[in-house]
Amino acid sequence: MIRHTVAFRLKHPAGSADEVAFLAAAAMLRDIPGVQHFEQLRQVSLKNNFRFGFSMEFADQAAYDSYNVHPDHVAFVRDRWVPEVETFLEIDYVPFA
Amino acid sequence: MIRHTVAFRLKHPAGSADEVAFLAAAAMLRDIPGVQHFEQLRQVSLKNNFRFGFSMEFADQAAYDSYNVHPDHVAFVRDRWVPEVETFLEIDYVPFA
Repeated sequence: MIRHTVAFRLKHPAGSADEVAFLAAAAMLRDIPGVQHFEQLRQVSLKNNFRFGFSMEFADQAAYDSYNVHPDHVAFVRDRWVPEVETFLEIDYVPFA
Repeated sequence: MIRHTVAFRLKHPAGSADEVAFLAAAAMLRDIPGVQHFEQLRQVSLKNNFRFGFSMEFADQAAYDSYNVHPDHVAFVRDRWVPEVETFLEIDYVPFA
């Protein structure tokens, strides 16, 4: 299992309609084949500058690779992520054997 | 629910006995009251410099606060975390309502 997470901050003002629209559009990521346990999260620690997070799990690297090149993911990154996200950090975890 | 995560990198060489000892010592964090779903994880993304992660969940902020001031947590931070961790980032998530 690989848990793919990304913490991020949008360019949009907090609580704005643009923020709501971005998060609603991102919900379709859960429907891409291989995505398990998809979560949209609020980041609440005061020790970093991120405001949201997504978390999803893949059975293995092949499933993760397939997600990365899936047309729906590629389109989301191009059309929403790149223009609307101010800063982000990807952190991927695997359990200890 | 609050999911408290910390991604980190140790001062110790990868695969060293000191690394193994640190992770073994940290396992006792799971026994502190209020800690749920404790995980020790390897960080595998090449897009950041962290090598490990811990993840745990608390039912609410009161449980999280109680953990933070618990003597076993305070001692772990003082005796192991501060001297042995090179860099870290705390990220805390709550689910969307």
